[in-house]
Amino acid sequence: MKRNLAPLGPKADQDTVRRSNLSLVLRAVRDEGEATRAGVAARVGLTRAAVSSLVEQLLGLGFLTEYGKTFSGQAGRPGTALGVARTGPAGLGVEVNIDYVSVCVVDLAGTDRVRLTEHLDNRGAPPAQVLARAAGIAARALESAHEQGLSPVGATLALPGLVSGGTVRQAPNLGWNRVPAEELFAASLIGRRPGHGALPVSSENEANLAALAELWFGSPGTVRSFLHVTGEIGVGGALVVDGELLRGAHGFAGEIGHVVVDAAGPECRCGSRGCLEQYAGQAALLRAAGIEESGAGAGVAELERRARAGDGRAVAAVTEAGRMLGRVLSGAVNLLDPDAVVLGGIYRGLMPWLSPPVAEELSARVVSGLWSPENGRLRAASVAGDAARGAAARVTAEVLADPVAYAGDRTTG
Amino acid sequence: MKRNLAPLGPKADQDTVRRSNLSLVLRAVRDEGEATRAGVAARVGLTRAAVSSLVEQLLGLGFLTEYGKTFSGQAGRPGTALGVARTGPAGLGVEVNIDYVSVCVVDLAGTDRVRLTEHLDNRGAPPAQVLARAAGIAARALESAHEQGLSPVGATLALPGLVSGGTVRQAPNLGWNRVPAEELFAASLIGRRPGHGALPVSSENEANLAALAELWFGSPGTVRSFLHVTGEIGVGGALVVDGELLRGAHGFAGEIGHVVVDAAGPECRCGSRGCLEQYAGQAALLRAAGIEESGAGAGVAELERRARAGDGRAVAAVTEAGRMLGRVLSGAVNLLDPDAVVLGGIYRGLMPWLSPPVAEELSARVVSGLWSPENGRLRAASVAGDAARGAAARVTAEVLADPVAYAGDRTTG
Repeated sequence: MKRNLAPLGPKADQDTVRRSNLSLVLRAVRDEGEATRAGVAARVGLTRAAVSSLVEQLLGLGFLTEYGKTFSGQAGRPGTALGVARTGPAGLGVEVNIDYVSVCVVDLAGTDRVRLTEHLDNRGAPPAQVLARAAGIAARALESAHEQGLSPVGATLALPGLVSGGTVRQAPNLGWNRVPAEELFAASLIGRRPGHGALPVSSENEANLAALAELWFGSPGTVRSFLHVTGEIGVGGALVVDGELLRGAHGFAGEIGHVVVDAAGPECRCGSRGCLEQYAGQAALLRAAGIEESGAGAGVAELERRARAGDGRAVAAVTEAGRMLGRVLSGAVNLLDPDAVVLGGIYRGLMPWLSPPVAEELSARVVSGLWSPENGRLRAASVAGDAARGAAARVTAEVLADPVAYAGDRTTG
Repeated sequence: MKRNLAPLGPKADQDTVRRSNLSLVLRAVRDEGEATRAGVAARVGLTRAAVSSLVEQLLGLGFLTEYGKTFSGQAGRPGTALGVARTGPAGLGVEVNIDYVSVCVVDLAGTDRVRLTEHLDNRGAPPAQVLARAAGIAARALESAHEQGLSPVGATLALPGLVSGGTVRQAPNLGWNRVPAEELFAASLIGRRPGHGALPVSSENEANLAALAELWFGSPGTVRSFLHVTGEIGVGGALVVDGELLRGAHGFAGEIGHVVVDAAGPECRCGSRGCLEQYAGQAALLRAAGIEESGAGAGVAELERRARAGDGRAVAAVTEAGRMLGRVLSGAVNLLDPDAVVLGGIYRGLMPWLSPPVAEELSARVVSGLWSPENGRLRAASVAGDAARGAAARVTAEVLADPVAYAGDRTTG
């Protein structure tokens, strides 16, 4: 039961309706990739005339472009193909993770147009320095974006910790506590881009943004409710329910890496003991496999290589991590009943050895009996947890939701 | 980002708007308990004239009654006090649990007007017989309701298992598998009420309905996101997010009783091992305290009595159960970040001994650091998990959401 007490006025405001319908049409073209006016009208349920008028406005504002004639495949006149403009408003995503910074710019179509990744150990440096470095990388990515006629209208920081109100409340693996990340990043970015105005900066937990990237760009969008788990140095989780992120009362939901596996287990950086991260995080996996961490993903690549070669210790390490991961996942599935569990990050490449023990635990312990190893509900992420792209796309989602509000931000390309 | 593609038409349908506003006004009066037209207008944000017209219609249809003059406490003319009618459409709730059946009828104000509870061991009997018995109890409650001028317009069954599409897919503690509960109950009820038409019957997991009862009738409604855990023979859970139940992809969310505590622990009726229920369910608690289960709540009353008297074994049993419950809850809080954890059922009376170890585990293991034993986020349920009332109120919620649709169901009292 909805208990919303907001009254419905006798008519909705006309301007609001038109802006909403402009968004509707723009998103329909984006979703189709290439579309005719007739196709858009059929998809959104508005009249052909209404859609034509909305399309003209979107063409005039530069959000759409025309490609020439196309045939629908059915009888009738050919239509003009419409597509989302490849220039103009865009989104900047900046993932600051433990051992890398990854920056990307996406256009309104959701295409990853610029990508710049640097492997860095961010654990040793003070937060201000890490964020200044990230701003430097972002400034270079913005130059590339401008060369392509793209104008990012905002940036989202993807951060491996508890993020709330622009601040990283806690990021145990970075050793950060109460770091005003948005402010530090924005100030550094202004310093690196003389002549440019300030870019609005928002921030979000990286596991949440990785889950949104999977939702928006991952496997075909039939599954709208899933638990997304990213193996990295930490183990991040996010829950998507009906296509929306479940953020929790303070934005701290999804911390599956700190669900307890063994109450008397090894100490965790979070202050507790026996957290999942201590059994299925990257460090634990490499240690159990007898592989030295060597940075820049080399350790995980070596683990995959050894597992593929049948190295007993490597296979045993992944199997045991999978068993612990599966136990925690079975609890999460009993609590949340998602359509699917999606494993990303380092888990993606380890699926051949990881997924059997995970599936076994799920089918033994999920009470509904809906989880058997065969039913495809356990799957690898389409991408290895691309929080930077999710971060950038969160900005463009704002543009798509109300293009008129960003019409002034359009450059002529 | 909402990705809803439904277009906004140029104007909303007038009839729909009026029906929605009738609901708005009726719910405002219900929430206030007693209200003036001016008070309702201020609350819902419609004009005084619009509210008066809506109130007249609701009075005419018999959903509201007038009580005479009241003073607002501020300057101005006295208004007439309005209240929700105490007769007419009502809801029937039928909780079929492991060792009892509890039936209640609530009126539109949410008041529990009829309550009939029988302690029965439902484990021994075939499902059809259990549901026929429940229908017999329901028929007697309906007689009492009719005598009070109430006309239940539907029934909701509250069932301790995985409920989906009218069927209990699995209820391990009852030993039920794929039981068409709605159909069996509805057929029995018709047989017991010759001359009456069929009552629409729906069904839902009892832990979900207990959580809704807490949301609607429990402690002041400031907390709109909480995890509700009910200790019974099973341990039931439900998650309320922003005042809505999180049901999961198949309606099976909230099964916290089957989250694993110890992978090698005792066998559970669900087929897994070491589930929370095996450590913090009623049977485990009584066994650890050395108390014989004697039915009708006597065992739990005895446990409370002994704990209050300082019996070491009783206190140790509750403390240990609390520790295990706290571990599982810490994982759930890390995953879900609720505003509060609410403990109901048998846990409610055991809070003096249960809450310290639960709070200790939560503060040690919740990664956000937002859970300290003092901050009041762990609380006892206002009622001991009243699924029957939640079930009945789910029916009246439908009436409140669109009173016009139920105007024909009003009797003259």
